[in-house]
Amino acid sequence: MDYYLGIDFGGTQTKIGIIDARGKLQIRASFPTDIARSGPEIVSAISRSAEKLIENSEISKSAIRGIGIGSPGQLDPEKGTLISVANVPQLNRIDFAPRIGDYLQRPAFLDNDVNAMALGEFLYGAGQGYRNIVALTLGTGVGGAIILNGELYHGATFTAGEIGHFSIDPDGLYCPCGNYGCLERYVGREGIVNRFQMYRSKGLATKMEHYLDNGQITPRAIAQAAGDNDELAREVMAETGKILGIALASLANILNPEIFIIGGGIANAGNLLLEPARRELTKRALTVPGRKVKVLPATLKNDAGIVGAASIAVAKLAK
Amino acid sequence: MDYYLGIDFGGTQTKIGIIDARGKLQIRASFPTDIARSGPEIVSAISRSAEKLIENSEISKSAIRGIGIGSPGQLDPEKGTLISVANVPQLNRIDFAPRIGDYLQRPAFLDNDVNAMALGEFLYGAGQGYRNIVALTLGTGVGGAIILNGELYHGATFTAGEIGHFSIDPDGLYCPCGNYGCLERYVGREGIVNRFQMYRSKGLATKMEHYLDNGQITPRAIAQAAGDNDELAREVMAETGKILGIALASLANILNPEIFIIGGGIANAGNLLLEPARRELTKRALTVPGRKVKVLPATLKNDAGIVGAASIAVAKLAK
Repeated sequence: MDYYLGIDFGGTQTKIGIIDARGKLQIRASFPTDIARSGPEIVSAISRSAEKLIENSEISKSAIRGIGIGSPGQLDPEKGTLISVANVPQLNRIDFAPRIGDYLQRPAFLDNDVNAMALGEFLYGAGQGYRNIVALTLGTGVGGAIILNGELYHGATFTAGEIGHFSIDPDGLYCPCGNYGCLERYVGREGIVNRFQMYRSKGLATKMEHYLDNGQITPRAIAQAAGDNDELAREVMAETGKILGIALASLANILNPEIFIIGGGIANAGNLLLEPARRELTKRALTVPGRKVKVLPATLKNDAGIVGAASIAVAKLAK
Repeated sequence: MDYYLGIDFGGTQTKIGIIDARGKLQIRASFPTDIARSGPEIVSAISRSAEKLIENSEISKSAIRGIGIGSPGQLDPEKGTLISVANVPQLNRIDFAPRIGDYLQRPAFLDNDVNAMALGEFLYGAGQGYRNIVALTLGTGVGGAIILNGELYHGATFTAGEIGHFSIDPDGLYCPCGNYGCLERYVGREGIVNRFQMYRSKGLATKMEHYLDNGQITPRAIAQAAGDNDELAREVMAETGKILGIALASLANILNPEIFIIGGGIANAGNLLLEPARRELTKRALTVPGRKVKVLPATLKNDAGIVGAASIAVAKLAK
């Protein structure tokens, strides 16, 4: 059987794992990313950890067909280099994937973490069997990735899929990107939490105090309270879903996908979020593309980052 | 040399022509589409006209590599059948391209007219040398077409590219499609003309009476007046460009194309329309995709429909 190694790189932590050709995680490890080191040292440390993981597994190195690396920030997936990643400027312009590939003597491929998530869902999750997929991750920010005709679409400068910066209102909330009304302002963490707090401060009842996330109101906490029938939490989830649906309708008209996959912590709210999104999409999209497209939650959970990263290699080597 | 036959089909008129492999039109003809006839009769009439055109040319039938047919409405480009075209319901579900191909003994391909325009510009016009293109036609309605990685993108139900129904304002003008704030409401014919008339009725000076288009205020008439320094016409053009730029910014963030190609009668206003669009795009788009993308007018003029239709065959047979 073929195996693929996935590296889910991040500015604070790096996770590594090996999946089989069906996407099943065989073994995993994680360690803090030591950002005090130089760029080449960081890459060497990751390479050595990956080698050790292979040794600790019962998989022979020759059975590992390739390595996929998922990273936040801006990058060049063709060269396998990072261009700009928050907190680790020393990695800019370093030949990240080629170095790891050389060290492990296996082909290595780099892509951004949202694209990795989308590929993971496409190959092993909610997107299986579909060819045209738009994936969104709702977290602190809102990320997006686009798979068209069964292939990841990167665009002219590898920045395609910035759905968080799709403006739904030209005079809406100001976004630090310079635009107004960006989707991220409304369905990203801050937008959701601010809306909840604003309504709560006006006296609407909630039992949020029982759901705090490390003492904080977070989208995950709101999703959980909504799941337990907290009325205000439900309303905020429904409003968030409706706003999401406004954006999905335009995306359905433009990209005509078979499926929208929604990931990120808030997607745990499930239909409390997605059903209002579907209704708004149905109302607003053109009939033909609106009827065709499904809105489904991401299904890869805990190890989605590793499986997604490994999927970059699966997709590349399948060509 | 290779030649391609293009059929620019419409509910009132059909235009036919032959281009060489460089996109140069060799011969053309046009005739009214006789919508009183049955579907098969309409297709036969077109086939016979195409055969006659070939006979009248100095091009041997064997030098014609293929036939491209551009049509308005909804259609299936894989089967070559029309699904729904306004005014000619008798053509629905008829094997349009296969019948014409059989009659002329040449491979025939069908696609919608906006996709045909985009392919024409990609192969022979403003889009030459680019791989990721978003094309818009501003006319009565607003059409769109998307070329990604050098190939037309059709989507799951062949309806991708409906950029006229990209909502730029969730509480904006009502659109008969069921949505609010669709781009078409603002930069389509009615939106532009209504804005002009509204401002004029408030007493703002204009010499529009010298520019009427068959006695009417049209986007073309406004574009012409703007070109002659009519102040109100200039303002309306600039506002239209700004609104267009709002949509282009989100499209740049999502699709990250190298070029936006703007066609349709109003595009004759040139930089009076496009410069405000470019400025708004630059302000609102993310820096990297915003800097990359160009906004240029379509360059194929009078016979763009025929050249575009023939381009469908060129693109298909180049694979």
